[in-house]
Amino acid sequence: MTDTGMTNPESANAGTANAGTSAAVTPIPDTGPAELDDVMAAAAAAAPAFGGLRPARRAAMLRAVADALDAAAEELVPVAIAESHLPEARCRSELGRTTFQLRFFADLIEEGAYLEAAIDVEDPAWGMGPRPDVRRMLVPLGPVVVFGASNFPFAFSTAGGDTASALAAGCPVVVKAHPGHPHLTRLTGRVVAQALADAGAPAGVFAVVLGMEIGQRAVLHPLTRAVGFTGSIPGGRALHDLAASRPEPIPFYGELGSVNPVFVTRAAMKARGEEILSGYVGSFTLGAGQFCTKPGILLVPEESDLSTLTGDVAERAQAPLLNPRVAEGFEHRLGELAEQPEVEVLVRGAHTAEGWTPTLLRTSVEALVRHPGVLLEECFGPASLIVGYTEEDQLADVAGLLHGQLTSTVHAEEDDPVAPRLLELLTERAGRVLWNGWPTGVSVTHAMTHGGPYPATTSVLHTSVGATAIRRFLRPVSYQSVPNALLPEALRDGNPLGIPRKVNGKPESG
Amino acid sequence: MTDTGMTNPESANAGTANAGTSAAVTPIPDTGPAELDDVMAAAAAAAPAFGGLRPARRAAMLRAVADALDAAAEELVPVAIAESHLPEARCRSELGRTTFQLRFFADLIEEGAYLEAAIDVEDPAWGMGPRPDVRRMLVPLGPVVVFGASNFPFAFSTAGGDTASALAAGCPVVVKAHPGHPHLTRLTGRVVAQALADAGAPAGVFAVVLGMEIGQRAVLHPLTRAVGFTGSIPGGRALHDLAASRPEPIPFYGELGSVNPVFVTRAAMKARGEEILSGYVGSFTLGAGQFCTKPGILLVPEESDLSTLTGDVAERAQAPLLNPRVAEGFEHRLGELAEQPEVEVLVRGAHTAEGWTPTLLRTSVEALVRHPGVLLEECFGPASLIVGYTEEDQLADVAGLLHGQLTSTVHAEEDDPVAPRLLELLTERAGRVLWNGWPTGVSVTHAMTHGGPYPATTSVLHTSVGATAIRRFLRPVSYQSVPNALLPEALRDGNPLGIPRKVNGKPESG
Repeated sequence: MTDTGMTNPESANAGTANAGTSAAVTPIPDTGPAELDDVMAAAAAAAPAFGGLRPARRAAMLRAVADALDAAAEELVPVAIAESHLPEARCRSELGRTTFQLRFFADLIEEGAYLEAAIDVEDPAWGMGPRPDVRRMLVPLGPVVVFGASNFPFAFSTAGGDTASALAAGCPVVVKAHPGHPHLTRLTGRVVAQALADAGAPAGVFAVVLGMEIGQRAVLHPLTRAVGFTGSIPGGRALHDLAASRPEPIPFYGELGSVNPVFVTRAAMKARGEEILSGYVGSFTLGAGQFCTKPGILLVPEESDLSTLTGDVAERAQAPLLNPRVAEGFEHRLGELAEQPEVEVLVRGAHTAEGWTPTLLRTSVEALVRHPGVLLEECFGPASLIVGYTEEDQLADVAGLLHGQLTSTVHAEEDDPVAPRLLELLTERAGRVLWNGWPTGVSVTHAMTHGGPYPATTSVLHTSVGATAIRRFLRPVSYQSVPNALLPEALRDGNPLGIPRKVNGKPESG
Repeated sequence: MTDTGMTNPESANAGTANAGTSAAVTPIPDTGPAELDDVMAAAAAAAPAFGGLRPARRAAMLRAVADALDAAAEELVPVAIAESHLPEARCRSELGRTTFQLRFFADLIEEGAYLEAAIDVEDPAWGMGPRPDVRRMLVPLGPVVVFGASNFPFAFSTAGGDTASALAAGCPVVVKAHPGHPHLTRLTGRVVAQALADAGAPAGVFAVVLGMEIGQRAVLHPLTRAVGFTGSIPGGRALHDLAASRPEPIPFYGELGSVNPVFVTRAAMKARGEEILSGYVGSFTLGAGQFCTKPGILLVPEESDLSTLTGDVAERAQAPLLNPRVAEGFEHRLGELAEQPEVEVLVRGAHTAEGWTPTLLRTSVEALVRHPGVLLEECFGPASLIVGYTEEDQLADVAGLLHGQLTSTVHAEEDDPVAPRLLELLTERAGRVLWNGWPTGVSVTHAMTHGGPYPATTSVLHTSVGATAIRRFLRPVSYQSVPNALLPEALRDGNPLGIPRKVNGKPESG
C-alpha cells in the first residue's frame, strides 16, 4: 500500500477535499505530546490486567466490539464514504470483513492453541543431563501502536487486523489515525472503546491518537512494545528505522509495497486467454487499483491479442481516488512509468472531477530486465503494466529479479514445463503464491499469509492477515520448576483451560 | 554473555596468550572480502537444494555431523582447552551438549510439526465470502551468518545452537569465528563441512570466516538472510543496527547481556538459607562466572548471616578467564562496581598467573534503587552482588526496575504473599522464570526459552535454545489454489510426509 501521511506534514486535514466528493468535515487537532504520554501510560497500566484475562474473557470482549461495530454501521458507513470516497457497497463489505475478523480471533483465542503451551516434565535421564520441569507459553508483549491504512478505512485501520490480533493477544492498542479518514477513525475508536468498557475491559486498553509527528513519537515512546503499520515503503521504512534506533529496539511490523506480478504461460494463454485478460482487468482496477495486492505487472506471450483487453480497460468507469495525496503520488509514478522510452501507453486513463479511468501500459521483458529499478516498483492506483515475452524461460529470469512480494501469481497448465521452476522462485520471494487466480481479495483464514520478504514487509517471519497474525504480539516465557498453584492456568497440571498443549514434545492426550 | 571481539581490532590472534596457559598457536589470517563473497555466493547457491530436501534427509545430515564431532573429540577437546582455558571435563560435557542438540533438532524436523503445515480447504460458505483453497507452511530463510560466542566454544559456537537450528530449518550457515578460539572454530568447521559433504549435502552449505571487519561485512552482505549472535551488548547492538540499516533489513537474533537476579524471600531464607547461599556460590562461580545466565544479583533479607557464604567464596580455587579481553572487561566492570560508595567488598578476589578467585560485593536495596544504571548491569566474570532488603515489598520494587533478562529466579515458599506478584513482574521482564533453582545450566528441551526482552536479546519473540529456536530461520508461505502435484510434499493431499498438520484450523485426523 502507498499512502500513509508520512511524507506530508499537514496530516490532520488531508483527504477532506477530493475530486470525487465535496464532503466538508471539521479539522480535528493533532494529539499533543502530553496527551500521548497519558494514553501510553494508561495502556501500559492496563496491560497486565488485560493480558492476564482468561482467553475466553477477551474473546467475549472482541465479540462485543464486533457487535457494536455492526450495530453502528449506519453511522460509520456514511463517514467512511465521505472520507475515503470508496463506494457504499465496498464500505459495507469491508465493515463486514472487519467484524468477521474480530470474531475469528475471538474463536482462535478461545480454542487456545495460539498460546503454544508446552510442558517438559522433569527427566533425570534426559540425554544431555537431568532435565528440570520446564513449561513454556506465549504471553502478550504489552502496548501496541497501530498505524491505520488509507485504503482500507475499516479492515486495516482502527478496528482492523492489527488491532484485532493485538487485542486478541492481550495487548492494549493505541491507534494512530490515518490522516485520510480522521473522523471515521475517531468515530470507530469511540465505538470500540465503549464496547470494550461495557464488556469489562480495563480502562486504557484502547485509544486513538492523531498527527504525523505524534505517530513518530508513539513509535519512540518508551512504553510502546510493538508497532503494526500498513502503508508506503518510504513511510514504513522511516518508522522501521525509528523503531530499530530506540534505546530498546521493538518489533516493527510494516506491510509496505508490492508489485504482485502475474506470470501467464503460453499454454494458459492459449487455453483461456480471454478469461485471463478479463480477470486481470477486474483485479487491477478493483478499488481503483488502490489495493496492496493489485497485480501491477502481467507477463504474457508477446504475440497475445490484447485488443479485447484494451477495449475493456477503455470502457471502465471513472472512480475517485482515496485522497489528494494518493492522486498526486499516482500521477507522479504513472508519469515516470509512461515516459520510459520502452514503455508504450496502450490505454491512457483520463482524470476529471469524477475521478480516474484506468491506464494500461506495455513493455517488453527485455526492457524489464534492463530497467528493473524503474519498472518493477509499485504504482499505487488504477494502472498496470503488460510485459510481453518471447521465450517462456524469460519468466524465470523476471522471477529471479523480484524483490520481496506480498503475492506472486502463475497462470499455467499443470503440465507446463516452466511451472515448477516458477513456483520455486516465487516461493523464495513472496508470502503468497497463487495459481490461476487473482491476488486481490485476501481471505481471513487459518492458513493465510499476507506478508513476504522486504519490501513487501519489514518482518519476513510474519503475516498481518489470518490466524498467525497474532504471533506478532506474543513472546515466549518458560517457567522452570514453578509450583503448580503459582503457574499460569494455561500451564497447570490437569489442563484447567482445556487447551491444546504439548507434553514432552508431543500433543497432550485428552 | 560479554565477549565478542567487536571492540578489539586485533581479532584473529586474541586469546592466544593468557594467564592460565601458555598455548602457542599460529595466527590465522582474516578472511578477505572477495573470499567472503565466494562463501556467501556458494551458500546462496546451495540454499534451494538444501532447503528443498525432505526433513528426514536433513535430519540424517545433522546426525552425521553429531557423529563426526563425537568421533573427533580427542582432536577437538585439547584445542578447546588451549584456546578457551576451560577445564577438560567442561569441554567434554559441552561437546556432548553440542552433539545432543544436533540430534535433538534432527528428531524435531523428522517429526515435522515445525513446518506448521496448515490447509484451509475451499469453502464457498466462509463467513467473509467464498474462501479459496489456502495452504501454509514454513520455508527456510536462506543463508544465515552465525557469530560464535567466546564462553561456549562448542555449544554456542561453530556447531552450536544457532548453527544446528539454522541447518535444521534448511538454511546454509556461515560461521564467523570468535577471535578467542579461531583454531577450534576452523577445526570444528572442517569436521562439520566434511560430515555434511559425506552425507550428501550440497557444496557451500557450511563455511567458516574469520575477522572482525569480515563479520560486519557478512551482516551487510546482500545474500545474508538472517544473523545469529551471542555476545556483548555493545557488540550485539552495533551488529543489530547494521542489520537494520541494510537496504533490505534482515532479522538479527542477538543474545546479549543479563544480570539474572535472584530474589530470596525471608521465609525461604529462614527455611533453607544455608542451602540457598551455597547454591548461589556454585552458580555464580560456575565456569568462572562466564555464563550469560550467571546470577549477578542475589536479594536477601538484610539480617542474613553471610559468614558461611563469605568463607565459602574465599576458599574457591583460582580459575583462568577465557582470554585477555574478557579479563580486561571484567576488571574494568568490577572496579566500577567496587568503587560505588554504597557497595561493600565482602570478599575481594585475587588474580595471579593461575587465574582469578571470585569476588563478592554487598549493597542495600535502597542503593540499588538509587543507582540502577550502574548496579543493575552485567558483570561478566567471577563476581556477584548481594543486595540486602528490609521489607519484602522492596523485592517487587527491584523487579519493577529490571530491564529485559534471560532469567529471573525466585526462592520462596509456596505461600509467600510476595511470590505471585514477583512472578508476574518477572514474567514481564524475563524469558525464563525459575523457582528455587539456579539459572546456570540451560537445558535443551522442547519448552525451553533462552531469550527475553532487550537487552537480554534483540528479538523478544524468540529463543536461541530449545525446539522453537528453529522458528528464527523460517518464514511462512501460503499457496492459493495450487494443484496438488505442484505443491510442496508437506502440503499435498493425503499427507505423504506423515507430519502433524492442521486442516481448517484443527489437527488433521490420522
